[in-house]
Amino acid sequence: MDARIGFMGLGIMGRAMAENILKNGHPLAVYNRTREKTALLADLGATVAATPRELAQASDVVIAMLSGPGAFADVLRGEDGCAAALRPGQVVVNMSTVSPADTREFSSLLVPSGARYVDAPVVGSKKPAEEGKLIILAGGDEAVIAGLEPVLLAMGSKVVRCGPVGSGSMLKMAVNLLLGIVLGGLCESVNFARKGGLDPAMVLEVLGDGPLGCGLFGLKGPMLASGIYQTQFPLKHMAKDLKCVLDTAYDTGAPVPGASTALGLYQAARDLGLEDMDAAAVMKVLETLTGR
Amino acid sequence: MDARIGFMGLGIMGRAMAENILKNGHPLAVYNRTREKTALLADLGATVAATPRELAQASDVVIAMLSGPGAFADVLRGEDGCAAALRPGQVVVNMSTVSPADTREFSSLLVPSGARYVDAPVVGSKKPAEEGKLIILAGGDEAVIAGLEPVLLAMGSKVVRCGPVGSGSMLKMAVNLLLGIVLGGLCESVNFARKGGLDPAMVLEVLGDGPLGCGLFGLKGPMLASGIYQTQFPLKHMAKDLKCVLDTAYDTGAPVPGASTALGLYQAARDLGLEDMDAAAVMKVLETLTGR
Amino acid sequence: MDARIGFMGLGIMGRAMAENILKNGHPLAVYNRTREKTALLADLGATVAATPRELAQASDVVIAMLSGPGAFADVLRGEDGCAAALRPGQVVVNMSTVSPADTREFSSLLVPSGARYVDAPVVGSKKPAEEGKLIILAGGDEAVIAGLEPVLLAMGSKVVRCGPVGSGSMLKMAVNLLLGIVLGGLCESVNFARKGGLDPAMVLEVLGDGPLGCGLFGLKGPMLASGIYQTQFPLKHMAKDLKCVLDTAYDTGAPVPGASTALGLYQAARDLGLEDMDAAAVMKVLETLTGR
Amino acid sequence: MDARIGFMGLGIMGRAMAENILKNGHPLAVYNRTREKTALLADLGATVAATPRELAQASDVVIAMLSGPGAFADVLRGEDGCAAALRPGQVVVNMSTVSPADTREFSSLLVPSGARYVDAPVVGSKKPAEEGKLIILAGGDEAVIAGLEPVLLAMGSKVVRCGPVGSGSMLKMAVNLLLGIVLGGLCESVNFARKGGLDPAMVLEVLGDGPLGCGLFGLKGPMLASGIYQTQFPLKHMAKDLKCVLDTAYDTGAPVPGASTALGLYQAARDLGLEDMDAAAVMKVLETLTGR
Repeated sequence: MDARIGFMGLGIMGRAMAENILKNGHPLAVYNRTREKTALLADLGATVAATPRELAQASDVVIAMLSGPGAFADVLRGEDGCAAALRPGQVVVNMSTVSPADTREFSSLLVPSGARYVDAPVVGSKKPAEEGKLIILAGGDEAVIAGLEPVLLAMGSKVVRCGPVGSGSMLKMAVNLLLGIVLGGLCESVNFARKGGLDPAMVLEVLGDGPLGCGLFGLKGPMLASGIYQTQFPLKHMAKDLKCVLDTAYDTGAPVPGASTALGLYQAARDLGLEDMDAAAVMKVLETLTGR
Repeated sequence: MDARIGFMGLGIMGRAMAENILKNGHPLAVYNRTREKTALLADLGATVAATPRELAQASDVVIAMLSGPGAFADVLRGEDGCAAALRPGQVVVNMSTVSPADTREFSSLLVPSGARYVDAPVVGSKKPAEEGKLIILAGGDEAVIAGLEPVLLAMGSKVVRCGPVGSGSMLKMAVNLLLGIVLGGLCESVNFARKGGLDPAMVLEVLGDGPLGCGLFGLKGPMLASGIYQTQFPLKHMAKDLKCVLDTAYDTGAPVPGASTALGLYQAARDLGLEDMDAAAVMKVLETLTGR
Repeated sequence: MDARIGFMGLGIMGRAMAENILKNGHPLAVYNRTREKTALLADLGATVAATPRELAQASDVVIAMLSGPGAFADVLRGEDGCAAALRPGQVVVNMSTVSPADTREFSSLLVPSGARYVDAPVVGSKKPAEEGKLIILAGGDEAVIAGLEPVLLAMGSKVVRCGPVGSGSMLKMAVNLLLGIVLGGLCESVNFARKGGLDPAMVLEVLGDGPLGCGLFGLKGPMLASGIYQTQFPLKHMAKDLKCVLDTAYDTGAPVPGASTALGLYQAARDLGLEDMDAAAVMKVLETLTGR
Repeated sequence: MDARIGFMGLGIMGRAMAENILKNGHPLAVYNRTREKTALLADLGATVAATPRELAQASDVVIAMLSGPGAFADVLRGEDGCAAALRPGQVVVNMSTVSPADTREFSSLLVPSGARYVDAPVVGSKKPAEEGKLIILAGGDEAVIAGLEPVLLAMGSKVVRCGPVGSGSMLKMAVNLLLGIVLGGLCESVNFARKGGLDPAMVLEVLGDGPLGCGLFGLKGPMLASGIYQTQFPLKHMAKDLKCVLDTAYDTGAPVPGASTALGLYQAARDLGLEDMDAAAVMKVLETLTGR
């Protein structure tokens, strides 16, 4: 595939993903709001676009990895926005985590231009992004997604075709619903055991050895044992994603008692000032409530 | 170790565990309330005791794997009960799941006899029991547990020394607290996604591939995809264990919001008549609440 | 005060409120999307405006009592919208229940026109509306609210000055937060007692006699005793208001565990098809979960 | 009725109730574990019994108002216990709050003696106790309760005949289930409004004026406005009663999501050291979680 790729959003995740696109030999243009972050990619051979519009003009496929729906709306709209330059046959791939409702709105905004929209949020954080091992949850036209696979597989180990536009976002919500519940539950279990006189490190080892043992425990266990919550996935994003789950569930009519309980904890953690720590810092809310 | 082992309780788990004791060459006597279940073990070389008291008289180590605290109290007490025959130096190992509070009470009941009490509930169900791969959570005197290791390792792959009497039960509660939350969360995620238009089998595959993927999903995923909940771990036991978690947390002061929410679901499932199905049938409560 | 009043929204509540304005001698123009509903008011002496814009042109004070923020946005915007005719010194009073966030947005939309915005949602439903005994929760400039009191007191028995724009809506949310919790709790108590073998009518009598006895029990008790939920306040509005409480709490950082639990019940009730019944029909969710 | 009354338990409630029995002209003997508390009643004309057994010997009707099931079991059992002196035709009236399950157990303990058991917990605290205006929830044989009415109406304004033994306790649980939810909800509403910039005193006034306004708000409102939680009903009792509700609901199969959420708050409050303050101090948990 010699499609020209345009990539917007060079945060922790985006930069790693853009590098992997270059390494796989795709021609790449990049845009970032704060321009300094483009330098590293330019050194590796990427063209730098001054505006989202310029990026869209220079690309066949425009990929976005931004902080949320607001940031995506910003690059779409306005005089310098992407939307002003979109044309039939072009594809916009939004890999940011946004709600199914926002996804449907963004998609309909593109209709007049003739460009196609694909929502393709990812499972995995910094390390799999660097290693090109993300799981990519793609929603949109089957043929369009098939055409994107070469570039998507530069960033991920697997592309899941979820269904029509919005279904990638829906699946991402389902994944993060469970993430929020399991991480909260892990903290609850360890705190319960600690309060019952047990050694947290031993508890974590037993949980990891049994049928519940999973990659997440390897990532978060050391945080819970040490009480140091160096950020892998910020707590405020966990709260935001669970809020999005509740909003979506309100619309679809799915009961989400576990996500609702979990959001209560993450929201309290956020308001206690832990928002930029790792989501596992929700443990501190349980500790606060445990008292003596 | 040529200690004589007495084993009470030949249910699904107990029978497999007793067989593994025999296979490892330990002399074994067995007792079961309904005597027919002892035949298989007798064929393999076990002695059959007519009463718990007779079993205790014939053994150095008495192991119990019963349905709960009531059943254990029954074999202890009364004229034919175990307690009437206990003597200094003997060890009683309770591998049933009972609460830390019950454990402390049973332990103190043994003090007059001079026998020692060890609580040693297990992680793992039918299959690991048959394969001798249970994880055994032992609470009690360090030296006593060390002496038991040969026989315990006939049943399990690992003996975790948790701390004093009651700490094995406390850890078992912490494990099942998380089990109840994760299983409930898995159902909630799959139902949410299904209601959002996604294919449950695809959702289960993506969840299994990511950082949350664990042995439990392999066990329960096929149930959720098929809607057939053939019992591995009965739902009523899940409800009972979570109730025990709440009782314990009320005593210790640990907050358990996730377990509390989860119990609400399992309790409703039990009362809707699903008590003997696998715990994963809690999905049916979510489906009932989802409506159209 | 001889201010000319314009009133938009002649639903169950709005019609009663508009009648009371007329009865108190204020000159009144009315607008309703489906024009037939204006006939009754015209018979009583009101002028009928063809569009929101016409209404605004003919009035000093524009009052809206609409079904929600969407309906209010509709009458504001567009060629025939209210906003096109607003002028300095004019006052727009929104008595519909909308969120504090929507309120702030509506208020800022009016800034260019020089008109002032007051949010004035009400406590009370059909009967107090007819009797002119609503409690009116007014947020906005003190002097502006003081000037409105004659017309507001035509509709209500009390005007509470809550603070700046948005504070009326905030207080309405606080009231409905508690309403949702208390009504859900009442159902939970009665169902618990019924399941314990007691007569619901007796339980309701005892609850009504004690320190929890309140007007709400008089309104809802007969519904719970009879199982017939003739609509006073539709269940879907209860769900919507609790959702708005959760959205607001997510923004402000207030913990709302009770509202969150209650929303789970009303949302389930809505999705079971009870959305147009009275909010007390949430009882049916509890009955469904109670099983045998 | 010239039945001789024996009264055990002269705490805040019991003393006031015993005084009202005397004032109504019934012959009265009293017993209290710490004897000093009997002096006041002796001055008013009561006989003082040295043991529960002596009290039972000297009485036709034995009334208990103790701190809980443990205290009641203590006065029943043992050499000096009540049970040793009970005889056919005598009636034991337990006005303490105990669970339906405990009630059934106590009742069956009395069967051999031929004495009858009535559970008669009360609605109302210190003030109605002093004024003889408690609501008395009586469970037991209809004729026996009818015979007790003269003495019960010395203490209360109303005797509710709830059904067979245990139904008084069941109704008391239903009442306190709602109490715990409403009080928690009141705190949640006020904290939500405060966090949204409103004045708590104004919020309390509006809530009191509307359809939710009830006696409880008059009792607790000043505490919430001042932040001083002088004990009317201790928080630890609220936690204990809600735990009893959950235990009972686990047995009967009634869903209690609101009580379960509320218990989480009261339990946290207890463990933060607020156990002896008024139950309204649960507000402090919400404030702790609200953060900045």
